[in-house]
Amino acid sequence: MKKLLVVGLGPGSPERMTIEAAHALESADILCGYTGYIDLIRDRYPGKELLSTPMKGELERCRLALEQADKGRTVAMVCSGDAGVYGPVLELAPQFPQVEVEVIAGVSAAMSGGALLGAPLGHDFAIISLSDLLTPWELIERRLRTAAQGDFAICLYNPASRKRADYLARACDILLDTLPPERLCAVTRNIGREGEQGRLMTLRELREFSADMFTTVFIGNSQTRKVAGRMVTPRGYRKS
Amino acid sequence: MKKLLVVGLGPGSPERMTIEAAHALESADILCGYTGYIDLIRDRYPGKELLSTPMKGELERCRLALEQADKGRTVAMVCSGDAGVYGPVLELAPQFPQVEVEVIAGVSAAMSGGALLGAPLGHDFAIISLSDLLTPWELIERRLRTAAQGDFAICLYNPASRKRADYLARACDILLDTLPPERLCAVTRNIGREGEQGRLMTLRELREFSADMFTTVFIGNSQTRKVAGRMVTPRGYRKS
Repeated sequence: MKKLLVVGLGPGSPERMTIEAAHALESADILCGYTGYIDLIRDRYPGKELLSTPMKGELERCRLALEQADKGRTVAMVCSGDAGVYGPVLELAPQFPQVEVEVIAGVSAAMSGGALLGAPLGHDFAIISLSDLLTPWELIERRLRTAAQGDFAICLYNPASRKRADYLARACDILLDTLPPERLCAVTRNIGREGEQGRLMTLRELREFSADMFTTVFIGNSQTRKVAGRMVTPRGYRKS
Repeated sequence: MKKLLVVGLGPGSPERMTIEAAHALESADILCGYTGYIDLIRDRYPGKELLSTPMKGELERCRLALEQADKGRTVAMVCSGDAGVYGPVLELAPQFPQVEVEVIAGVSAAMSGGALLGAPLGHDFAIISLSDLLTPWELIERRLRTAAQGDFAICLYNPASRKRADYLARACDILLDTLPPERLCAVTRNIGREGEQGRLMTLRELREFSADMFTTVFIGNSQTRKVAGRMVTPRGYRKS
């Protein structure tokens, strides 16, 4: 059977991969992925053929991976632990009916960043990307509002980039329509990589924070509190 | 340093643990956890001392684990890949200032179930537990409504138990106030264990589905579609 393995690497360092993901990479003839991910693993697999394309070349990368698999070579397509990257390859896959695609889940940035901070996502939560490359900003705004109205803990992906320097501040302004400025928040940076760090702050402080593309943002719900320096969202609600 | 490791096992089978989690379990003197999780791993660690308590004994279990760690033994407290279980131990930890608590994230049920189905959570999503043991039902209802209004893909945890047989139907009725009955949904069962299965259906069909405590439920957003038998939520929105 011709095979394409879509492998979630998790946050970065090798030991944060699942054992299943490590086996998949070992079994592959070709490792394929965005240059940034391939760079994370290239030294660990010196014998493998590598196929990498930059960030924007995603559809091309998926097609290349499927074409190689269709030639009978086992291809592992690597990505983060988050599921967003699986979609394009699954959408192209029906054009290659001989290739079986298997998705191997990894630890998401929300979960690994959360573990670093404590348990900020210990109860119901929403994940929202602030990137408006493929999603209208109005919808991102609606999601921020509805998540705040639902008292969800919130994790923000892609809080900033060079072209979107003020997006996090704009998102905070929307949240501040519903949430108090003292709401406990946090940021993590370089999760699972060198220089890993987490920092707790209020929503007011978050509004002034300079995020970059390596930042993941956490916003607590009404029950979230600081416990011995950690951010903890209890599983339930205190009976009043 | 006295140490308590809180270890997310992931969905169940050993190879879906991270390498870091496997190392943590090997390094521990005592494995502690809910009986259901300890049963998953006891055969793999024949030499370890085991400390398990049933579902409801969570606070007692956390205290026992911290007490053992405080005596100088390395304790690994095992749980699923979801962060909800970390909270109670982090809240008790300040009573044991000598014990360093380290959280090791695992693959969540949302991510592993999603990988089985395709990429249902490929864009912004919300996770909502239907258990009203610690959360008022009115708030669960509000979260269902706001998540639907925000066009989030949704993953439902704890969709049913013996005492809450009709909760999934009640949740679907709330979602149906906002979402069309044809909305693509899916259920997974026994993720990462024997008898693992996934099934796609409409929201109307989901309303009639008999879930149990091993079921995880997925509800697509407005862009989610079936692609060669898989459930795929694209990362963005098609320009119309």
